[in-house]
Amino acid sequence: MSVDDDPTPTCPARITRWEPRTGRVEADDLLAAEEPLEIRVRGRGISVTMRTPGHDDELAAGFLAGEGIVRRPADVLRVTPCARNEAGNVIDVLLAPDVAVDFAALTRHVFASSSCGLCGRATVEAIRTRFPPVTADWAIPAAVVASLPAAMRDRQATFDRTGGLHAAALFDPAGQLVVLREDVGRHNAVDKVIGHRLLAGTWPLDRHVLLVSGRTSFEIVQKAVAAGIPLVAGVSAPTSLAVDFARESGQTLIGFLREARMNVYTHPHRIAFA
Amino acid sequence: MSVDDDPTPTCPARITRWEPRTGRVEADDLLAAEEPLEIRVRGRGISVTMRTPGHDDELAAGFLAGEGIVRRPADVLRVTPCARNEAGNVIDVLLAPDVAVDFAALTRHVFASSSCGLCGRATVEAIRTRFPPVTADWAIPAAVVASLPAAMRDRQATFDRTGGLHAAALFDPAGQLVVLREDVGRHNAVDKVIGHRLLAGTWPLDRHVLLVSGRTSFEIVQKAVAAGIPLVAGVSAPTSLAVDFARESGQTLIGFLREARMNVYTHPHRIAFA
Repeated sequence: MSVDDDPTPTCPARITRWEPRTGRVEADDLLAAEEPLEIRVRGRGISVTMRTPGHDDELAAGFLAGEGIVRRPADVLRVTPCARNEAGNVIDVLLAPDVAVDFAALTRHVFASSSCGLCGRATVEAIRTRFPPVTADWAIPAAVVASLPAAMRDRQATFDRTGGLHAAALFDPAGQLVVLREDVGRHNAVDKVIGHRLLAGTWPLDRHVLLVSGRTSFEIVQKAVAAGIPLVAGVSAPTSLAVDFARESGQTLIGFLREARMNVYTHPHRIAFA
Repeated sequence: MSVDDDPTPTCPARITRWEPRTGRVEADDLLAAEEPLEIRVRGRGISVTMRTPGHDDELAAGFLAGEGIVRRPADVLRVTPCARNEAGNVIDVLLAPDVAVDFAALTRHVFASSSCGLCGRATVEAIRTRFPPVTADWAIPAAVVASLPAAMRDRQATFDRTGGLHAAALFDPAGQLVVLREDVGRHNAVDKVIGHRLLAGTWPLDRHVLLVSGRTSFEIVQKAVAAGIPLVAGVSAPTSLAVDFARESGQTLIGFLREARMNVYTHPHRIAFA
C-alpha cells in the first residue's frame, strides 16, 4: 500500500486572524502549496495544470490515461522532471514508440475548432465512445462502502492542517485502502491515484473503488472509465452529466457517501445491500 | 440587484438510497445540471467548459475578461447562442472590431508550447504582469465581511436542493449583495458574476467584494484582478499561489470566512477591525 509516502507540501504564512471576541490577532498559518505543472510528450507541452507539487509522475501518467493516450503500463517508458526547469514544474513523459499521440485531438478536447453542430454534446459523445463500458460483476457490501470516507479521512495528511485540499483514494473490494492522494485540484488527485496504479503495473483497475472527497463531475467519471474503474463514490453530490455518463458506461455511481448513508445513482447491482 | 433571476436548472433522477437502519429505498432526487459550453469568438471555438446551463452570456463575457481579451463593456457588442446548435451549448461573442484576439496566446495559456525554461512560473508571471495591480483604498468593517457568507447562503437557490454547486457573489462595500451565481464549476460561477457586471456596463469592479463558496485558487484571484476587484474572500482555504498572487497584485485575500471569523492573508488595510 502507498499512502502519502511523502507529506504533501505546505507553505508557511503570516496571517491576520479576526473574530468578534478576540479582535485582530497576527498568527502563523500553513497553506496548501499550489504550482503549475507542464506535462510534455515527445517534446511538446500538452497540458499546464495548477497542482499540489509531488507525485508528478503519477499525475502525468494518470492524466495521459484519462485522455486515452496511455492504455497500458508498457505504454509509459519513463517519467522524469525536465532538468532544464529548476523549479521542477515541467515533467517529461517518454512513451513507447508505438503509442499514437493525436496532438490535434488533445487540443480539440479543450479548444474546440469543430463546426457549430459538432461541439458540446458531440464532445461528450466522443469521450463516451472512446472507452469501452465496464463489465465487472463483483459486489461490495453497503456497510463496507459506508466505511470508506472515514478510512480516507484518517489518512488525509494535509487537509487538517490547511483545509485546502481535495482527496482521491482507491480501495479494493474488501474496503482496504490502496492509495490516497491530496491535491488542490480535484482532477489532479484522481489522476495521481490512477497514475500510481498504472506506474505500479496494476491495470486495468477493474477491481478498484474510486472515492473522491467532494462533488463528482463528468470528468471524474470519465477518468475512472478510462482506467476501467467500475465503482465511483463521492462524499458530496454528482452532476447530471456524471450520472448520465456513468449509466451509459456501466459504472456504479454513489453520492452523498457520509454519515454511514449513501445515494446510489446508477447500476446498484454492485452493492450488496443485505 | 440581480439574484438568480432564473432558477438554476436541475434534473430529476430516480435513485437508490441506503442507510443502516432503513436499508435500501428507491427515491426521487434532483441533480445539478451539467452541460458543455463552447465559447466562440470570430468564428473560432476558444474554450469548452462543463457548466451549469443558464447565464451563458455572462459566463462568456466574464471568461473573456479573465483572459484579458475584453477590457471594457464596449468591447462586447453582442453575446448570442449559436442558432445552429439546438442544445444551446454554443455561444457566440461578437467583439468590437478593434479588440485584438491573440488566439495563439489563448491556446498557450493551457497548452504550453514554450521551451522548457519558459513554462510554469513563467506562465504565472505572464498572467501577473498582464493586469495592473489594484489600488482601491476603501475599507469595509470586519463585522460586515463576517456577515457575507450568511447573505450568500440565504440566496443560494439550488445548493440546498442538489448539494452540488459552487457559488460566487459580488457585494458592495456596505455588504449589499449585487449578484450571485451558482455553477458546477467554481471558475464558471466567478466568470458569471463578473460577466454580469460587465454586460450591465459596470466596470471595473473596484468597489466590489468577491465571495466564493469553497477554496480560493490562483485562478480565482487572477480572474478578480482582471476585473479590478480589490477584495476576495473564500469560505474555505486559499492556496499558496493564490496568496502570492494576491500579495503582488495588491488584493486583500480572506479565507476561512465562516462562523463570524476570518483569516486575512494579504493587504489587511481594507478591513476595519475596530
